[in-house]
Amino acid sequence: MQDVSSLVARAREGGPRAVARLISLVEGASPQLREVMAALAPLTGNAYVVGLTGSPGVGKSTSTSALVTAYRKQGRRVGVLAVDPSSPFSGGALLGDRVRMSEHASDPGVYIRSMATRGHLGGLARSAPQAIRVLDAAGCDVILVETVGVGQSEVEIASQADTSVVLLAPGMGDGIQAAKAGILEIGDVYVVNKADRDGADATARELNHMLGLGESRGPGDWRPPIVKTVASRAEGIDEVVAALDKHRAWMEKRGVLTERRRARAAHEVEAIAVTALRERIGDLHGDRRLDALAERIVSGELDPYRAADELVAGLTGR
Amino acid sequence: MQDVSSLVARAREGGPRAVARLISLVEGASPQLREVMAALAPLTGNAYVVGLTGSPGVGKSTSTSALVTAYRKQGRRVGVLAVDPSSPFSGGALLGDRVRMSEHASDPGVYIRSMATRGHLGGLARSAPQAIRVLDAAGCDVILVETVGVGQSEVEIASQADTSVVLLAPGMGDGIQAAKAGILEIGDVYVVNKADRDGADATARELNHMLGLGESRGPGDWRPPIVKTVASRAEGIDEVVAALDKHRAWMEKRGVLTERRRARAAHEVEAIAVTALRERIGDLHGDRRLDALAERIVSGELDPYRAADELVAGLTGR
Repeated sequence: MQDVSSLVARAREGGPRAVARLISLVEGASPQLREVMAALAPLTGNAYVVGLTGSPGVGKSTSTSALVTAYRKQGRRVGVLAVDPSSPFSGGALLGDRVRMSEHASDPGVYIRSMATRGHLGGLARSAPQAIRVLDAAGCDVILVETVGVGQSEVEIASQADTSVVLLAPGMGDGIQAAKAGILEIGDVYVVNKADRDGADATARELNHMLGLGESRGPGDWRPPIVKTVASRAEGIDEVVAALDKHRAWMEKRGVLTERRRARAAHEVEAIAVTALRERIGDLHGDRRLDALAERIVSGELDPYRAADELVAGLTGR
Repeated sequence: MQDVSSLVARAREGGPRAVARLISLVEGASPQLREVMAALAPLTGNAYVVGLTGSPGVGKSTSTSALVTAYRKQGRRVGVLAVDPSSPFSGGALLGDRVRMSEHASDPGVYIRSMATRGHLGGLARSAPQAIRVLDAAGCDVILVETVGVGQSEVEIASQADTSVVLLAPGMGDGIQAAKAGILEIGDVYVVNKADRDGADATARELNHMLGLGESRGPGDWRPPIVKTVASRAEGIDEVVAALDKHRAWMEKRGVLTERRRARAAHEVEAIAVTALRERIGDLHGDRRLDALAERIVSGELDPYRAADELVAGLTGR
């Protein structure tokens, strides 16, 4: 048996194995999930959560690694959550706890965790918030959440970040795709990586143009900056960190940070509640009530909608 | 305003426009959906629903068309529901009601309906049962449901049929894929189409071998037959119809038909109830109760699981 409170205490002291164990407990449907979540609650809310998203090949992992280095220089403790199946972090650690990432493997101030996809990203979107809570409670100052692509699931994961960074690279036809996929709505900071390549300026210009096409902004509104980087040489990374700091300060000043976290929490509660209700209905399979309703549908006495009303009424008392 | 009872009456009399209109009403979240479903309930339960599934290129649409011809020769009224985005039926009718399928377009005993995918097949799996009810109530003796591929959604759609036909074609590497995708669990009748091509016998043999590897069958159990066809020349189609008749008779004798329909109805009710509960929770967005819970999570007073408990308790009274 795992003693949850001692695990939490060890995680607070910086024990990487305790952190890994806690994440494993919250990722699955472990019987101790609720106990862990309850124990973590009062310890959370300190970490600044940064989402990094972009198509495969734009250099997300290299950028993440460079950001870790930059934050460590500032003495901040960093957590990395790689929910990117194409990430070398994930690739190396689908079954393990902590990745040997040559640069950061021996640094006790860095936690790196990959999350398995369980078939599709939707599942990840569900367990990522819990893993973020563990890293937060463990004392990480910054948590970098790396996700691949820009689809619905990615947007969901991005919605779990305080600040969302969207990465692009020149010559990938990202411009038009970006507009289609709605990344112009989710980015707080844009990074054009591989800026030493041809077309980087054009990509940045096009992006700048498209961002300008959006709704008009007031004088105090946030205008997402576009930062050019060569992450493999750490060029421009300090500028990214500066842009993130600036966005955080802006959010705090305008009350946006608390507002985002509240919306995130509401979304999280909603998802958990829906799952619980679904399970409750699932438990009815083989139950006489559902069987009786099905019988009446087959006989033509009842239609499935009215039957569902009865089922819901039976569950909710109204 | 549409008068639902007169629409239903006209559909019963064989009016193709009334059938089309009713399917449109049940496909979307029309305000009259429930009224339509209630009106249809007592008229359903007569149609025999046959699912046809298989990878793109095996000749599903050609087979469907050939089956329609065979059933029409027997004087049976036939409904076709094409939930196959690659089907020429769907292709020609994504926005329309009834497809001009040269052979059957002018036949008042045939209804052909394609269903748009709305992004993914999961959505189809939800509205297909309602469309089947419309065709059933309209007096179709047989309803052919054509679905593409063999994935999770297709298995769901197949589960809405009384009898499931799995189509294969030689030389498509279907054998091993089939085993992987679990089609050996869903087929009641197997068809190796394009049987005039090289490798047809090998495909049938391999399939036969794999079906034999499954659980041992008792003397009264159903052993899925394998029928070879050349649908484009209607060869073997009468044998498919005979196999379907045989399976139906077997199901009726053993009580399997009612059992399947009951399970299908239970599944349908469950899906509608989950959607209703999800919407009920969704309605809480911007609601003070959810906001208050989110506030307490952000402050660290409450964890999201306990908050979800409170939310569910508020909805269900327990």
